[in-house]
Amino acid sequence: MNELTIRLEAGSPSPLYEQIYEHIKTEIKNGELPFEERLPSTRMLAKHLQVSRSTVELAYEQLLSEGYIESLPYRGYFVCRLDGIVHLEERKLVLPRRRAEQKPVYTYDFSPSGIDVNSFPHNTWKKLSKSILMEENKELFMLGDPQGEESLRTTIAAYLHQARGVSCTAEQVVVGAGNDYLLMLLVNLLGNGCRVAMENPTYKKAYHVLASMAESVAAVEMDKSGMDVEALERSGARVAYVMPSHQFPMGTVMPVKRRMELLLWASEKEGRYVLEDDYDSEFRYKGKPIPALQGFDAKGKVVYLGTFSRSIAPSIRISYMVLPQSLLEIYQEKGRCFSCTVSKVDQMLIMRFLREGHYERHLNRMRAVYKSRHDVLLEELGSLGGICEVSGENAGVHLLLHFANGMSGEEAVARAKKAGVRVYGLSDFIIGRQIASPTVILGYATMEEEGIREAVGRLREVWK
Amino acid sequence: MNELTIRLEAGSPSPLYEQIYEHIKTEIKNGELPFEERLPSTRMLAKHLQVSRSTVELAYEQLLSEGYIESLPYRGYFVCRLDGIVHLEERKLVLPRRRAEQKPVYTYDFSPSGIDVNSFPHNTWKKLSKSILMEENKELFMLGDPQGEESLRTTIAAYLHQARGVSCTAEQVVVGAGNDYLLMLLVNLLGNGCRVAMENPTYKKAYHVLASMAESVAAVEMDKSGMDVEALERSGARVAYVMPSHQFPMGTVMPVKRRMELLLWASEKEGRYVLEDDYDSEFRYKGKPIPALQGFDAKGKVVYLGTFSRSIAPSIRISYMVLPQSLLEIYQEKGRCFSCTVSKVDQMLIMRFLREGHYERHLNRMRAVYKSRHDVLLEELGSLGGICEVSGENAGVHLLLHFANGMSGEEAVARAKKAGVRVYGLSDFIIGRQIASPTVILGYATMEEEGIREAVGRLREVWK
Repeated sequence: MNELTIRLEAGSPSPLYEQIYEHIKTEIKNGELPFEERLPSTRMLAKHLQVSRSTVELAYEQLLSEGYIESLPYRGYFVCRLDGIVHLEERKLVLPRRRAEQKPVYTYDFSPSGIDVNSFPHNTWKKLSKSILMEENKELFMLGDPQGEESLRTTIAAYLHQARGVSCTAEQVVVGAGNDYLLMLLVNLLGNGCRVAMENPTYKKAYHVLASMAESVAAVEMDKSGMDVEALERSGARVAYVMPSHQFPMGTVMPVKRRMELLLWASEKEGRYVLEDDYDSEFRYKGKPIPALQGFDAKGKVVYLGTFSRSIAPSIRISYMVLPQSLLEIYQEKGRCFSCTVSKVDQMLIMRFLREGHYERHLNRMRAVYKSRHDVLLEELGSLGGICEVSGENAGVHLLLHFANGMSGEEAVARAKKAGVRVYGLSDFIIGRQIASPTVILGYATMEEEGIREAVGRLREVWK
Repeated sequence: MNELTIRLEAGSPSPLYEQIYEHIKTEIKNGELPFEERLPSTRMLAKHLQVSRSTVELAYEQLLSEGYIESLPYRGYFVCRLDGIVHLEERKLVLPRRRAEQKPVYTYDFSPSGIDVNSFPHNTWKKLSKSILMEENKELFMLGDPQGEESLRTTIAAYLHQARGVSCTAEQVVVGAGNDYLLMLLVNLLGNGCRVAMENPTYKKAYHVLASMAESVAAVEMDKSGMDVEALERSGARVAYVMPSHQFPMGTVMPVKRRMELLLWASEKEGRYVLEDDYDSEFRYKGKPIPALQGFDAKGKVVYLGTFSRSIAPSIRISYMVLPQSLLEIYQEKGRCFSCTVSKVDQMLIMRFLREGHYERHLNRMRAVYKSRHDVLLEELGSLGGICEVSGENAGVHLLLHFANGMSGEEAVARAKKAGVRVYGLSDFIIGRQIASPTVILGYATMEEEGIREAVGRLREVWK
């Protein structure tokens, strides 16, 4: 039997039992206490170390729990046979180096994906948040409905009906933490072998998510009405991801006729769906918003996807999808095992934000902000008359510039960069083979009016 | 040319242009305005309706945008050919009936998955939430790091090192809205053909998620040390999902030797991983917490999964996983397209909750609350001496009762139900073929001490 000599430190922050436990554990790991060796009895060790017997018992119990020693009836405590314990050396983690991104410095950035965070409804958000946490409602901290709280789903369904012409009940709404998550969930519901068609060019973020989750992605050409339905048919896809109210990045509004053709395509085979991403339909500067495709769907073929990220703030992770009946049945069968990804506090917050009219007011304010930026940008672009033409300017928070003077989009982006202005080449949004395009994209959500004037002035200099 | 007679209501909440637009749209849908029919010019219709020409222009522009009419140069406006428009009838949605769950009424519920929501740190949460929203930091509303904010990941890494013996850097931590979401993401990173082994019995929620996401799930038998590694080898799985610190529901603590064997299994083939779900290691009533398996891993084979759902509140959707180097590389390649599912406000909140010592204080408070419930339950169960034996009582917030009097778990559950007490049969947690088991599970996190005494009294009556 080993004579255990342990130097105990009375003033140490770790209790005596822990010091004994640590010492024996280290000796076992280092092989100084060989396997199958018998340990002194708790009584003897306590006497030897001049501590109470319960202190030693606590140490032995911890070693027992973790499996370093075992207790044999009437015989005492023994060191366990630990094959492979020699591998317990300290690990050196070699972390992969992140590519050091050399971010070029831009004075102005016409980002098409940004939003105006200065307009975030701070005070309302604070007040609602406080009021929700004041209620001390126990329900608020229990696990909720995987689909999202019913009160929030009812509110979203009513909003969608009134504002977007979406025809649905609360039962069809699934709330989730962002579009990426909902796409993940949806691909899971759609099952194996799900080939998804996307308009080309398209929203690259959704493309990456779908390429990662779905069986495969087909890039389908667009014409001036949107996705080419014959090409869609040829693609072999069974789900068509489209943005009918305002295609990103082309800005195309899908006319009623194309919508009908798309719905007809979906109704021709079981398991076909149209996935409508209605990402920024709130912002339209001429007439009323374009109604959602979902409202035309008589056969239960459309999945509608909406988000508060574009209209409130990207860091508020709340999106929702509206499932048609067939997918709702699958969701109820296999989707309800995924707990809701949005905290209840946030669900209650957005619910009250909608119900109490804050959302409508916020949207009106944002429309005014974006409209004036939009108007300034268009006015300024007027001076680029001979150089390029504008399209896609009636909705959303970006527009397209098509060069008529033979300049390529790449060249335009490069020249703008030299002037400290970031614009985006259309080719960045094309799936697959890179094709040169004489088009660039300018988003104006994050640009102040003065900045727009100054930036377009710079562009005029380098593009002319 | 059709003479359009539109009854305009001056007092209507919808503007005049919208009334004109709605009228023409309805006539087109109903076939009253046939395809290719020419519409009156804006000037003529304005005169006819006695409204301004711009009002009619606005209505026509909306119809143009949505594709109901088209404009031919020098010829005027024409109704579009809309094949299939007849399908636009109102849709009758037949919603699937949710199975009407007949919830039996229990006076007492020994739920093993509940937590004590009365102890939620309300005041701290409110204060932190207010203080974070007060900062009016613009960054707070922009889209953040898909992996989670670096400050939070650093804080989690430090906590895991100190409290759980997990060895990692902030770069390895991925934050997500709940374990279910992180499992979804992880299965995606693990790639095709991922067969996952789970201990049997196991945590059914994780089973459902993995069964839905992974290629297949193998149920692997346990012995008193946890997952049987030979059976794991035979199962053909390449990922082993285990709960080494405190297996659910068995309460087994995996001894060092089994941990080594599991790590050895993982190191024998490329692409093998051990997925450690450390769901309730914070609560242990004897000695120190059992260190995480991850801390023993010298070969980068363990994915560590932790959550604040059990320790703070289930509705706070914040979990995290620690990826080993090989999976971190895959994450950086294909996982970063999934935006973080936790809002930045919540990330900052939990970060400060940890950094400012609130979490440690909260855990200490919870340990005391659960410890006293645990003690009362054990004391009361003492009187069931001849009837059943207790196991798994040293950690977590549930324990197991094994009947020694020949009663099956099912019978015990049924008798308890008659007495208004809910207990859980072990067989509910078994994957696959249902085997009768003489064991039931009692969770005590949601039970007040008085309730425990009263409920065990009732159980004694019906079980003796």
